[in-house]
Amino acid sequence: MSTRKNLKVIIVGSGNVATHLARAIAQSKHELRQVLSRDLSRAKVLVNNTNVQAIQSVSHIDPTADVVILALKDDVLNTEYINQFPKKIILCHTSGSVSMDALAAFPNHGIFYPLQTFSKLKEVDFAEIPICLEASNTEVMQTLSLLASSLSPLVYEVNSKQRKALHLAAVFACNFTNLMYDISEDLCQKAGMDFEILRPLIRETAAKVQEHSPNEVQTGPASRNDKNIINRHINLLNQHVDYQEIYRVLTDEIIKRNEEL
Amino acid sequence: MSTRKNLKVIIVGSGNVATHLARAIAQSKHELRQVLSRDLSRAKVLVNNTNVQAIQSVSHIDPTADVVILALKDDVLNTEYINQFPKKIILCHTSGSVSMDALAAFPNHGIFYPLQTFSKLKEVDFAEIPICLEASNTEVMQTLSLLASSLSPLVYEVNSKQRKALHLAAVFACNFTNLMYDISEDLCQKAGMDFEILRPLIRETAAKVQEHSPNEVQTGPASRNDKNIINRHINLLNQHVDYQEIYRVLTDEIIKRNEEL
Repeated sequence: MSTRKNLKVIIVGSGNVATHLARAIAQSKHELRQVLSRDLSRAKVLVNNTNVQAIQSVSHIDPTADVVILALKDDVLNTEYINQFPKKIILCHTSGSVSMDALAAFPNHGIFYPLQTFSKLKEVDFAEIPICLEASNTEVMQTLSLLASSLSPLVYEVNSKQRKALHLAAVFACNFTNLMYDISEDLCQKAGMDFEILRPLIRETAAKVQEHSPNEVQTGPASRNDKNIINRHINLLNQHVDYQEIYRVLTDEIIKRNEEL
Repeated sequence: MSTRKNLKVIIVGSGNVATHLARAIAQSKHELRQVLSRDLSRAKVLVNNTNVQAIQSVSHIDPTADVVILALKDDVLNTEYINQFPKKIILCHTSGSVSMDALAAFPNHGIFYPLQTFSKLKEVDFAEIPICLEASNTEVMQTLSLLASSLSPLVYEVNSKQRKALHLAAVFACNFTNLMYDISEDLCQKAGMDFEILRPLIRETAAKVQEHSPNEVQTGPASRNDKNIINRHINLLNQHVDYQEIYRVLTDEIIKRNEEL
């Protein structure tokens, strides 16, 4: 299998990860053979205007396919549904937090975890997405590498323990960061200003850590341990007790890290 | 003054803001006349290889200058030092958190606040920096606008109350965001992986909010209120009580915001 250049791939699921992954594979040198969703109408939307087959039942999957990618919610991965798939096919899932062992009933199984934030609102460039692979054996790793490297130059071998740590780290780097943006927008708007004014700062803050380590480029009142400004900020937030608590907890953490350096 | 095209500008200070601002003005159509620092050696480093004069004492400032920009620490702005400047010149400061009133002894005064994170480690493109202006009268505003618009297309009139809100919002959008990056790097490295793997996610998270509102593009376990993953993450952090608290506080905030939508 690993010597063939073009793989036949089946995607299971129709959510954000399935959608973005299906588009990327359809545009690669590999063949997106089928998209399977228990909601057939969603699978049809996903394969719209292509030769890819939309199917609803596991019994219709092409047995000659090389790889089945389960782009499903975590709780579905842990159900009997998975056991319906043919045992000889390479079966992998895209979850950051489910162990590879969830697929242990299959002799050839692995992980195909794209580390990115996907949403319907925005196209993504797969060439910018790290793909984290894990495999039950060397041949599976070769096949998954062949597929992943055709989508992105950023391919990593990551074991299940590391992947869970990465998924957790991503919550900080992405979801909690986005919450910081959200709060800043709220504070801005409550003072009668448009969020537009903060966007360049957000770009530059992300740009800075592309070349440097975040702790080298920290700035601001907590980083200088400027108690005057910190207290004034906490006073300014007296109408937002939640924000006050967040401000205190994060400021304390920055001060503590500086003391440890 | 407002009809002249080329302004003579004096910068007071030699820190990050003074340095980046001096470079930008020296490259603009306006004239950087002098850089004043109580530490003359730092002023000399700053004007190195240019015609700009480095001075140490307020008594040496060119009385024909149009604008003096005080790029000083907040606590210096509130001292007697400021009162030594000639009363007729336009005096403005660059602080996000000090009121314009701090300069009320001068008939022509204002604010020239560049909303960006400056550090010695990285060059910045002033065309990407919002400049927030406030002025004691219309003529001062015209002069500051002339100067600001030659450095950046992003010029805003922002009053002192709004500027303080903006400075606070910037702590969330920049300093606290950078702390999230810092924690994600730490978690990544403790699991034996390089921070490089998270950088594309950081870029995309910032890119998403350039076109959208952060609350429209939030993803992750808190956003889905996925208690299984949230609990697993909190368990994973049992060696890091600080991170555990931060995880809880920020997760609760995301869940609460979703409930309010």
